[in-house]
Amino acid sequence: MFEKLKDLKTYEAGKPIELVVREFGIKPEEIIKLASNENPYGPPPKAIEKVKNIANQMHRYPDDSFFELKDALSVKFDIKNSNVIIGAGSDQILEFAVHAIAPKKVLMAGITFAMYEIYSKQVGAEILKTKSITHNLNEFYEIYKQQKPEIIFLCVPNNPLGECVDSKEVFEFIEKIDQNTLIVVDGAYQEFASYKDKNKEIKPKDILKYPNVLYTGTFSKAYGLGGMRIGYGIANEFIIQNLHKLRPPFNITTLSLAAAIEALKDEEFVKMGIVKNFEEMEKYKNFAKENGLDYIDSYTNFIVLYIKNSTKIAENLLKKGIIVRNMASYGFEALRITIGKPEENDKLLNTLKGMIS
Amino acid sequence: MFEKLKDLKTYEAGKPIELVVREFGIKPEEIIKLASNENPYGPPPKAIEKVKNIANQMHRYPDDSFFELKDALSVKFDIKNSNVIIGAGSDQILEFAVHAIAPKKVLMAGITFAMYEIYSKQVGAEILKTKSITHNLNEFYEIYKQQKPEIIFLCVPNNPLGECVDSKEVFEFIEKIDQNTLIVVDGAYQEFASYKDKNKEIKPKDILKYPNVLYTGTFSKAYGLGGMRIGYGIANEFIIQNLHKLRPPFNITTLSLAAAIEALKDEEFVKMGIVKNFEEMEKYKNFAKENGLDYIDSYTNFIVLYIKNSTKIAENLLKKGIIVRNMASYGFEALRITIGKPEENDKLLNTLKGMIS
Repeated sequence: MFEKLKDLKTYEAGKPIELVVREFGIKPEEIIKLASNENPYGPPPKAIEKVKNIANQMHRYPDDSFFELKDALSVKFDIKNSNVIIGAGSDQILEFAVHAIAPKKVLMAGITFAMYEIYSKQVGAEILKTKSITHNLNEFYEIYKQQKPEIIFLCVPNNPLGECVDSKEVFEFIEKIDQNTLIVVDGAYQEFASYKDKNKEIKPKDILKYPNVLYTGTFSKAYGLGGMRIGYGIANEFIIQNLHKLRPPFNITTLSLAAAIEALKDEEFVKMGIVKNFEEMEKYKNFAKENGLDYIDSYTNFIVLYIKNSTKIAENLLKKGIIVRNMASYGFEALRITIGKPEENDKLLNTLKGMIS
Repeated sequence: MFEKLKDLKTYEAGKPIELVVREFGIKPEEIIKLASNENPYGPPPKAIEKVKNIANQMHRYPDDSFFELKDALSVKFDIKNSNVIIGAGSDQILEFAVHAIAPKKVLMAGITFAMYEIYSKQVGAEILKTKSITHNLNEFYEIYKQQKPEIIFLCVPNNPLGECVDSKEVFEFIEKIDQNTLIVVDGAYQEFASYKDKNKEIKPKDILKYPNVLYTGTFSKAYGLGGMRIGYGIANEFIIQNLHKLRPPFNITTLSLAAAIEALKDEEFVKMGIVKNFEEMEKYKNFAKENGLDYIDSYTNFIVLYIKNSTKIAENLLKKGIIVRNMASYGFEALRITIGKPEENDKLLNTLKGMIS
């Protein structure tokens, strides 16, 4: 009955706090979770207040047009309401795109967001990856010319590595690609990258002129609403109309919708989190230098530290209630660590110091 | 780029309160929404309290194993954790099933839940419907024998009509179907049907012995959490494992997960809503009899009243701030009305009385 699913693997999520509580009996309030690139400063206060006020409306389906949220995003990005589709995380926009096209071949970086591959395999697509683990767009273009994939994923900046190609390079690449190939520009961490370096900024408005480019963004990272599953796709109307054909009704919750609308009114809070993120990231870079560790210069809210025996070290951290992401499953010994609050970073680095020295 | 989507239509959701506010300038608190079969008594109080308490955790992804919720459902239904998959509404379980099998043909009742057809068309399936608009299982079997569809949808009780086949009939039907065909038993309104008449009750446990039956249930109706998008599928482990291959990570929100767990601790509240539902439904039946209207005997939280010019009447109700579902799009003149609170039902029936007499 399920023959076509034989080769599918499922996504391995970061270990939730609940699991550590269950497995190691550590108190929830003592656990430090720096594994899933959540905003350590929590959800925007305005979103919290709103959700408390309307918790008694959970029996009501949301306004399925998502009118107010699309409107707020349109104003933010200086685009039209009809250029926006709302998803349960930007993941779901990726899913719509892949299922809508059902590509035979898709192209992505050697190491990049796992869902590109998972969704593509669901429709039986062949996965093409660059040899470079990061985004080498020349290499992307060489493979594109030979293989003509129907979808190309660019993760700008890239998760789970943290590096970022310049937006100029992205647009030069787009210009060279035939209009029958959809280019997905995943901007899940764009708020961080564009703050750190204007050369990395991709304005969703600028992709609208291309008939074959889809930008995706999320409320899960800088906007502190990872648990509420809200993302968006931005593209020309033809693409958006077609993606809507795959959108199930009520694909985000009543509380998610309200929280996202409020979050967009709380830009000061969001900005604060981004500023602190890069201040705190310095601690990790200094730690790496002091201890002779390599790291990837990051344009996101996480950093990859190369550490020998990363599997063992991740396990030992977990036993102490510190959750990070081990990169061994990607084929190299490193940890991906979300930049936390000052006290969380200090505790992690102190604990790690004891393990590697 | 999107050739395969050409013939797809999108689901038409019930009009949300926000739309009526926008279109007719009626105050939100004066609007009566009886269009989407939401629980008029709201979410379970325990769920409201919990959500308020953890609103500051919206930045955290949920425990993607959904361990605690599956555990609670396993206890409730006397099954194993591994027999359960959690979805963003039971809709998403239907989506997983259709996408996992990618059937060439699917079979369903003449008028039934719209998403069966929409998901099936997404994978290019041919839609087979019985001539009977309700569930005539003899007719289902005749079509099955000739056409051998890979999926059969049974909606027990049926939305949007409200009628319900006996569970005995359902199991006799299942016994006759080859194991290569998946039978989906949609129990979204089972809590109502099994309360009204034990002959309609389908215990999820009883379908586990069949290798080809999937039961779906929801927190959207009797459990008062429609806006939170939580449903579940129950089947033998082989089916559940395969459906998990299509489940995106974090497919329900952190607050939805907590709300559902609490709702299962609030069975008294849920029961109260079901009891009142059928008490209040009497008003509609009496109204129909007094006014010479036909209606469909309902095993759900809504009732279908046959009314001439239903399109015009639904529009006039809307202008007065009362939202119901017009059945004209299904090809007959009738209104589907969610059973509301006493005062809502009284106001609707008084208003309707003025329109038909």
